[in-house]
Amino acid sequence: MTPWKEKKITIVGSGAIGLFYGARLQQGGCDVHFLCRRDYPTVSKRGIQVLSHDGDFELPEVQAYHSTRHIGASDLVIISTKASDNEEVLKILPPLIHDKTTLLVFQNGLGNEEIFAKTFGAEKVVGGKCFVCLNRINHGVVQNFQHGKIAIGEFQGGNSPRVQELASLFAECQVRCAPSANLKETLWRKLVWNVPFNGLTIAAGNVDVSVIMQDEGLTQLTRELMKEVIDSAKSVEGLEIENSFIDEQLQLTSTMGPYKPSSLLDFRAGRPVEVEAIWGEPVRAAQAAGCEVPRMSMLYQLLREVTKPKALE
Amino acid sequence: MTPWKEKKITIVGSGAIGLFYGARLQQGGCDVHFLCRRDYPTVSKRGIQVLSHDGDFELPEVQAYHSTRHIGASDLVIISTKASDNEEVLKILPPLIHDKTTLLVFQNGLGNEEIFAKTFGAEKVVGGKCFVCLNRINHGVVQNFQHGKIAIGEFQGGNSPRVQELASLFAECQVRCAPSANLKETLWRKLVWNVPFNGLTIAAGNVDVSVIMQDEGLTQLTRELMKEVIDSAKSVEGLEIENSFIDEQLQLTSTMGPYKPSSLLDFRAGRPVEVEAIWGEPVRAAQAAGCEVPRMSMLYQLLREVTKPKALE
Repeated sequence: MTPWKEKKITIVGSGAIGLFYGARLQQGGCDVHFLCRRDYPTVSKRGIQVLSHDGDFELPEVQAYHSTRHIGASDLVIISTKASDNEEVLKILPPLIHDKTTLLVFQNGLGNEEIFAKTFGAEKVVGGKCFVCLNRINHGVVQNFQHGKIAIGEFQGGNSPRVQELASLFAECQVRCAPSANLKETLWRKLVWNVPFNGLTIAAGNVDVSVIMQDEGLTQLTRELMKEVIDSAKSVEGLEIENSFIDEQLQLTSTMGPYKPSSLLDFRAGRPVEVEAIWGEPVRAAQAAGCEVPRMSMLYQLLREVTKPKALE
Repeated sequence: MTPWKEKKITIVGSGAIGLFYGARLQQGGCDVHFLCRRDYPTVSKRGIQVLSHDGDFELPEVQAYHSTRHIGASDLVIISTKASDNEEVLKILPPLIHDKTTLLVFQNGLGNEEIFAKTFGAEKVVGGKCFVCLNRINHGVVQNFQHGKIAIGEFQGGNSPRVQELASLFAECQVRCAPSANLKETLWRKLVWNVPFNGLTIAAGNVDVSVIMQDEGLTQLTRELMKEVIDSAKSVEGLEIENSFIDEQLQLTSTMGPYKPSSLLDFRAGRPVEVEAIWGEPVRAAQAAGCEVPRMSMLYQLLREVTKPKALE
């Protein structure tokens, strides 16, 4: 048993990602505290329900809060809000943080770990990417479509006992978790999927991933966008992501059925979309490194406008 | 006075373009016959109303029809339907056509003149492009926001007495009309505007041209798309469109205010959008000529999907 099972874990942001991984950790025996916003009334009364192809389960009682002041200092803080909420998250984190707190950032896109490292210290930050199909389908209810896995790594790079221990913790709690010595590579690999699919499902007019996979022109455009992300990763970080990763990602996506990426669900619900983290930061990084990314850049410009709150006509 | 004033003119497609130029011709003394579809009841009863910064005018009585069989053989047939209707138009044209009929094609995009030339003979076809801001704002009512001009030229290229005479006819009817010895150039110059503005106003989430002009990122994208059209015109037809044309077009657009291109209005109203004529044909022509057009191609793929009729959710 890892030492982390004895420690205090807080989930900041109880959307699909936070509810699901928090529930897995609690199910595995951890002391988990959930900071909720819109789901607080339901989760505090009825707990969390997980629908999963690995077997549904319920946690009728969870420790739910609507303020970090009521949670207090925690050993592991999993940040699973939308990246677009980070300014607000910075303000509410301090009550959770002590000298040895680890901040595990589970967010899409680039530039998020930097925000927390700058404010609370780089040594506190571990980054994580979730390769999983998860939707929050109701208050306190999460659906897990694909087995999925997560990858975590030190913000400052390299191997660490902490990351190894956390990976073991997740593994003991039925979550496949790979420790990564190169967090940057993990982030960019995730972008290879997020940039085209989170973007095109919105920009092609509110469609799920199966619509893209069934259309030859849109699948080709997806490949071209993935190639631009791979080229960017090379220019920006010197990363070598093999081109066969494109085929693997498309193959994986073809098994997802009519999956709706989180950005599409946010867009449909009128919530903010993580436009800067998923598209803006990678485009700026690529352009600063002299890498031409015409399609990524175009997608970014379109999404900036499309996702703006619009007055009703 | 040109001989065309004595001749029989038929307008096929009484939308914004057909109603406006037909009204100008009738106002100038021509014998004009309007083939109407959705506007038939209104136009046959109350005629046409034009709102124009050059002065509003009304034609309380016009010759309106809902079948070409009731119009009969005509000397000049102005085809101003949407390009997406051409298959249907081919079927209804025959009653209008005699040995010397001129078909004047006023449609957006590439490949339209070819369709009529193939069926009725290349010598019959004159192409025209309207550089004008026109919206049909109600049944039989057209608004003209900008002075505008048209350019017409032989489908087979070169100068001809017919094109000179038609240009004079339009001029006598208060329509600025330039005869063009190079119709291809006229078509591609129009595309320099239509490809970005008709496309982005839809793809950026249903916005008017002023939204694009006021956003730095979208204006830059517009410039890049215009450059791709200019490069395509060079590769496909050997045309030299000067890069300063981009600045001119943007300057012109900045005077249009919140103008909504026809494709955007079609999209909003749930009508078919001319996706193949404006984006599909130019992209295919450019790619066949070895010209890289990543942004045009991406816009085409997005618009194909976005403009598909969607089942209500």
